[in-house]
Amino acid sequence: MEILGGPLFGVAGAGESHGPAVTTIVFGMPPGLFVRAADIQRHLDRRRPGSNRHGTPRREDDTVVLLSGLYQEDVDALTAGPAVQVIAGEQLSATTGYAEGYTTGEPIAAIVLSTAKRSADYTQFAGPAGEVRPGHTDLVKHYKSQGFVDPRGGGRSSYRSTISDVIGGSLARLFLAETFGTVILSSICQVGELKAQRTLARHVEELAGAAGRLDPAAIATLEAELASAEIHSIDADFAAAAGDLIKATRIEGDSLGAAVEVVAVNVPPLAGDPLYQSLKLRIMGSLGGLNAVQGVEIGAGFEVVARRGSENNDPLRRSGYQANSHGGLIGGITTGMPLVFRVGFKPTSTITRPQQSVRKNLEEIEFQLRKGRHDPCVGVRAGVTLESRVAIDLLNAVLMHAASHVAPDAFRLFE
Amino acid sequence: MEILGGPLFGVAGAGESHGPAVTTIVFGMPPGLFVRAADIQRHLDRRRPGSNRHGTPRREDDTVVLLSGLYQEDVDALTAGPAVQVIAGEQLSATTGYAEGYTTGEPIAAIVLSTAKRSADYTQFAGPAGEVRPGHTDLVKHYKSQGFVDPRGGGRSSYRSTISDVIGGSLARLFLAETFGTVILSSICQVGELKAQRTLARHVEELAGAAGRLDPAAIATLEAELASAEIHSIDADFAAAAGDLIKATRIEGDSLGAAVEVVAVNVPPLAGDPLYQSLKLRIMGSLGGLNAVQGVEIGAGFEVVARRGSENNDPLRRSGYQANSHGGLIGGITTGMPLVFRVGFKPTSTITRPQQSVRKNLEEIEFQLRKGRHDPCVGVRAGVTLESRVAIDLLNAVLMHAASHVAPDAFRLFE
Amino acid sequence: MEILGGPLFGVAGAGESHGPAVTTIVFGMPPGLFVRAADIQRHLDRRRPGSNRHGTPRREDDTVVLLSGLYQEDVDALTAGPAVQVIAGEQLSATTGYAEGYTTGEPIAAIVLSTAKRSADYTQFAGPAGEVRPGHTDLVKHYKSQGFVDPRGGGRSSYRSTISDVIGGSLARLFLAETFGTVILSSICQVGELKAQRTLARHVEELAGAAGRLDPAAIATLEAELASAEIHSIDADFAAAAGDLIKATRIEGDSLGAAVEVVAVNVPPLAGDPLYQSLKLRIMGSLGGLNAVQGVEIGAGFEVVARRGSENNDPLRRSGYQANSHGGLIGGITTGMPLVFRVGFKPTSTITRPQQSVRKNLEEIEFQLRKGRHDPCVGVRAGVTLESRVAIDLLNAVLMHAASHVAPDAFRLFE
Amino acid sequence: MEILGGPLFGVAGAGESHGPAVTTIVFGMPPGLFVRAADIQRHLDRRRPGSNRHGTPRREDDTVVLLSGLYQEDVDALTAGPAVQVIAGEQLSATTGYAEGYTTGEPIAAIVLSTAKRSADYTQFAGPAGEVRPGHTDLVKHYKSQGFVDPRGGGRSSYRSTISDVIGGSLARLFLAETFGTVILSSICQVGELKAQRTLARHVEELAGAAGRLDPAAIATLEAELASAEIHSIDADFAAAAGDLIKATRIEGDSLGAAVEVVAVNVPPLAGDPLYQSLKLRIMGSLGGLNAVQGVEIGAGFEVVARRGSENNDPLRRSGYQANSHGGLIGGITTGMPLVFRVGFKPTSTITRPQQSVRKNLEEIEFQLRKGRHDPCVGVRAGVTLESRVAIDLLNAVLMHAASHVAPDAFRLFE
Repeated sequence: MEILGGPLFGVAGAGESHGPAVTTIVFGMPPGLFVRAADIQRHLDRRRPGSNRHGTPRREDDTVVLLSGLYQEDVDALTAGPAVQVIAGEQLSATTGYAEGYTTGEPIAAIVLSTAKRSADYTQFAGPAGEVRPGHTDLVKHYKSQGFVDPRGGGRSSYRSTISDVIGGSLARLFLAETFGTVILSSICQVGELKAQRTLARHVEELAGAAGRLDPAAIATLEAELASAEIHSIDADFAAAAGDLIKATRIEGDSLGAAVEVVAVNVPPLAGDPLYQSLKLRIMGSLGGLNAVQGVEIGAGFEVVARRGSENNDPLRRSGYQANSHGGLIGGITTGMPLVFRVGFKPTSTITRPQQSVRKNLEEIEFQLRKGRHDPCVGVRAGVTLESRVAIDLLNAVLMHAASHVAPDAFRLFE
Repeated sequence: MEILGGPLFGVAGAGESHGPAVTTIVFGMPPGLFVRAADIQRHLDRRRPGSNRHGTPRREDDTVVLLSGLYQEDVDALTAGPAVQVIAGEQLSATTGYAEGYTTGEPIAAIVLSTAKRSADYTQFAGPAGEVRPGHTDLVKHYKSQGFVDPRGGGRSSYRSTISDVIGGSLARLFLAETFGTVILSSICQVGELKAQRTLARHVEELAGAAGRLDPAAIATLEAELASAEIHSIDADFAAAAGDLIKATRIEGDSLGAAVEVVAVNVPPLAGDPLYQSLKLRIMGSLGGLNAVQGVEIGAGFEVVARRGSENNDPLRRSGYQANSHGGLIGGITTGMPLVFRVGFKPTSTITRPQQSVRKNLEEIEFQLRKGRHDPCVGVRAGVTLESRVAIDLLNAVLMHAASHVAPDAFRLFE
Repeated sequence: MEILGGPLFGVAGAGESHGPAVTTIVFGMPPGLFVRAADIQRHLDRRRPGSNRHGTPRREDDTVVLLSGLYQEDVDALTAGPAVQVIAGEQLSATTGYAEGYTTGEPIAAIVLSTAKRSADYTQFAGPAGEVRPGHTDLVKHYKSQGFVDPRGGGRSSYRSTISDVIGGSLARLFLAETFGTVILSSICQVGELKAQRTLARHVEELAGAAGRLDPAAIATLEAELASAEIHSIDADFAAAAGDLIKATRIEGDSLGAAVEVVAVNVPPLAGDPLYQSLKLRIMGSLGGLNAVQGVEIGAGFEVVARRGSENNDPLRRSGYQANSHGGLIGGITTGMPLVFRVGFKPTSTITRPQQSVRKNLEEIEFQLRKGRHDPCVGVRAGVTLESRVAIDLLNAVLMHAASHVAPDAFRLFE
Repeated sequence: MEILGGPLFGVAGAGESHGPAVTTIVFGMPPGLFVRAADIQRHLDRRRPGSNRHGTPRREDDTVVLLSGLYQEDVDALTAGPAVQVIAGEQLSATTGYAEGYTTGEPIAAIVLSTAKRSADYTQFAGPAGEVRPGHTDLVKHYKSQGFVDPRGGGRSSYRSTISDVIGGSLARLFLAETFGTVILSSICQVGELKAQRTLARHVEELAGAAGRLDPAAIATLEAELASAEIHSIDADFAAAAGDLIKATRIEGDSLGAAVEVVAVNVPPLAGDPLYQSLKLRIMGSLGGLNAVQGVEIGAGFEVVARRGSENNDPLRRSGYQANSHGGLIGGITTGMPLVFRVGFKPTSTITRPQQSVRKNLEEIEFQLRKGRHDPCVGVRAGVTLESRVAIDLLNAVLMHAASHVAPDAFRLFE
């Protein structure tokens, strides 16, 4: 099943890089949350190609159209979203998407059209003699699909598919923020060999202390700092240098790896199941499974290998854990301390330098990219997707925990 | 998880009766099947309100727009589907849906806009003092959602949600027909107290014999007979009388129950798991769980209760079972004999006669429907949904069986 | 996945009719429920072969051994269950099962040994030239498994596998009874052509009235009546006649169908999701999917086909629904009225009369059973399994509803 | 749902550290694989406490008893496994487990008794005033379970629960080895600050070349090298030094982190779905989610962050990928190159040095462990669990790919 998260809160997605649209169905949102399309659009805009100076030159509006799962009695306000028209032959059907309303508990569907498609860019890769881009899924998906794959822009395996992650994540974040004040942030901490000196995890730890909580003002300051840097990072100097490096590398026709921290603050404790569906397993999987990711750490990560237990065990006091080497999860369950992850991305596979490759029929070639628009450093806009995946798994874990508290009061109907 | 079928082939749906659209994501279709939007539209048109003389007067085009999961090298032919436009403020985004292509194995998304909405019809039911329609979900969903339900036309619990069933079912049917010649038919066999004299199951049994197979010509004849009757039934006389009864009952402001047979022919044997996820469990659930259904039978159904084992056991010969009291499944596994189900629907809950009811706040009222457009007999257009649900579960079972045959040849890449 | 129920509360089972044991893992039970092994044993004893005069002559103790998921500080009381020994060569391992304790929220595992095995009884069916018992899964499972099926006593597809249903159901019932006073009963209402005059559904309706609630004394009386009849039925006269019919039919070497009502009282309202995972879909599937079942009805069942809407809609008053033609579910959601199902079983397939059949290699034979011990009427002890399946799905639905109520108080750890 | 892997091949587990037994149900194994209990016991013995010089001093036989899912016509050979007895009062039930047989496709259940329990060791942690061991799940599970957790030895969150992983993994490995020659190995590559000079991944790469395949002799040599080292590592010198370090650290009452490589060779290409259920997501999750793991890498892991695309893209030739920086998965799909993972474990939380902690009621204490038997370095015996988790997810992915190849020949019954 093509589901991210679940079984209680999850996201189903569909749509290829150069297909008509990315379609998303988000299920399991509890009823009663007020949602504005703009709340989702805000996060989508961070993910959008063309949204920053260092991403792909592809331009998309990525306007989200909400098609279900919201309601309010003021139907005019509810239905004040974008106009949608379908024209089949002489027949025109028209409606409008939802602008804002309360969640009803029913699935929330959304579409985002893909308009900046240039199929001609992809003739190099089409058909059984199509060329294979090293580092891409072209070859395995060609054989896996018995030749029926959509080769345009990586098809379904494009970063464009993360639109669904971001839509689902935006809704999860709204619920978590409203209910617990939870906020999820990310910060780029390495680009190629350049490393940030300030890390978000340490910065949050200093601000939040043992209680692990930040107030709205502190969060707003953090968000502003992150948004104003040259690339999305808490370390503005690093961000500036990284921006320069990305520009230079683009000109060289090459690409760069990156590492991104993801930190959630004001996290509800006791969410997450142990063992086979633990929240640690879920998030390590959903972050580690994202396209181009090759490493994922929680808390102090691989550093703990070289530590002794006496250094690494987080001391406990009445107010909470006095350190967070575990990154906010013990035994797969939230402690209330910040959730801290670090994710390593490979350099973007698409480069313009010549490389050894094959055609899909395995004929050997010297591969040279002809056309195409791409990110030289995928980390530049991956943060919002990572945040979204954390939010989705966290909300699912919150609902799983709620399920074990059966309050007879929630089962009342007649008098 | 809001999934019909699965885990291998399944359907996720979203969308309320009077929301902007019904959105569908179909996952797990194997790659390489040629699909035309028209193949889906054909079945949707049978489901569509206004598609026959005896259904609701609501009119919808129900044009399906396919948004992902198909491909062919002739991109112009692929993308020759309906034009889709989204207008947000000054910004216009435009693309076209898919007209025809091969499945890629990726999820297939579709939207169907809802345009014939008259929200004013539903003011009687809105808000905490809204009136409760007896037999409908109004009250339970109001309390379950803590008041946030979309009350317009039953919201998500409307028959309109079966658009997703039909889209998923259409795709499943195409695959089953192409691979095994499987065809799934339905016939209305009872309306109120009127019972058909000819049943589809018996008719198919006579035509198909012990081998349980029908040739394409026989199937085409059957389909033509079913389509030409006054209501979708193999018994034209019954259909004519039932049509009259429905008309009369509509005028009386009342409604009628119905029973519908569903029969699949040319069924691949050995599909279906035993026990907890048996195909019998799956189909009895998906048919029995459909809105308004109150009974479901397989094969000879409740008749077998009065039989002795010596009458009921289907004798076996080299060519197959010599009878089909089991309805094509033994131990939850297909035998290759026709799948035979019979489904009983309650009379449509919406009637214009006065009834005892309450407001959502439980104040007692004499309920009298003010406005609204409805089927007096829901069975008249339920058949295609039943067929679809059988197809979805059957295809999932086929894939489950295929999964247990690991052919090393399917795992080849390099030389 | 071989799971009954779920995703929140469910049961995984394993074990063949003549294998060493039936193994069960029940997951998702909320923490804090006090469970005694005897609470489970009581229901298993109703299911057990040899537990009544009219079932199979096979004798099994069916002692349940609980192996996980319980705890109490008095470890001696916790571990006062049956002794378990494993002897491998010279090595003896010994422990004891749990006698009673509180659920911890972790999975609860149980084994029930199978000891009354007579493999020699099954040589008639072994190997590629083994004979096929009409009405049984022998043939389809032989081919489905590519010849590797365990043919002894139907292997996994035996009624013995319902031990897992009953263990899971017993735990679900305890939780539902403790939390809501919910009790689930069944009554045999037809055996062959003999029909009960009194039905459990009507009897409960008369006792419970519009509120749909029974007090503990009324329930105890009902349970006593059911237990004291010749077969498990609220109609003692019918039960006596049915007992005679079963005896006579066993002597004739033939078998009988049966119908069984299942009724749950004191049901919490608002449990169950709509549509694709509705509680109606779930229970119609799990009852309809049980071995030998060929029909399942909810509420008034197929009778509603012949009704008008004006007769069939249950009138609503402040105190609740004034009738229960819907059988306690509207839109797949509990109303608080009794859940009412009726299930039709085919006559037991195993008979001693000669029948047309084949060998597994399809050679045609006149089949004559040589040996074996079986129920002439499977309905005689199916009731407890049906009750169990209702309980499992109902508890899962209760937890699903609880999951949508996120109470921040349930997420507290430090001060 | 407490499932590892799935939906096609998966493992359900149950059982606490000091409960009667660990129970396992493995579902989805295709029929026809010959399995010996000894094949499973061999891997369990590597996991077993007391199986090496550097693990916990707890001693368990960990004899696996197979209770279902196997068959062969020689029933005596089938049932030649350990004797199992259950004694309840005066009643003795006895049977024997399975010794060897063919898989039938039905679930395979197993129990492993826990006999070396010393409940008295855990009085320090019992009850609401029980002490909390830093780094352990004691506190979160106490609150999550509302006080009903089993506190003995970590309850369900103990490493003892990985018995189920190893049983499921052993079965998966047998199937993969038989069908594709796939073998999964692990090697400890870091203990505290000591790092191995030889890594398994590089060693395998050198042996296997671009084809990525090793012959049985080379595998046997590797396995022998790994087994003969002081700790399970391909670098014998490192292993000897690490063994000394572990001994010294145990004496100091402290503990050590470790890193472990996991490498699968002779991997079938084309297994694994893209995106939300990709094999990369699945394995990064199941390895990263294991108790005590804080980091997980695939292929070149975090090293790739500092690389350029031109260095990192694996060149392609007709014979395969010429390097394996991706670790055998591209786009979540196997390439046929070795699967390469590296996993970082924190130092064992249980140490005898004094630490700041609290009681469960949050009273602050200076914590000093009184009794208990533990691994000073959990990595010493984690390898077999990591290998098992890779095997489980890989087999599930293989079956998922097989499911998309519907061969009509697999659906034949009558003539």
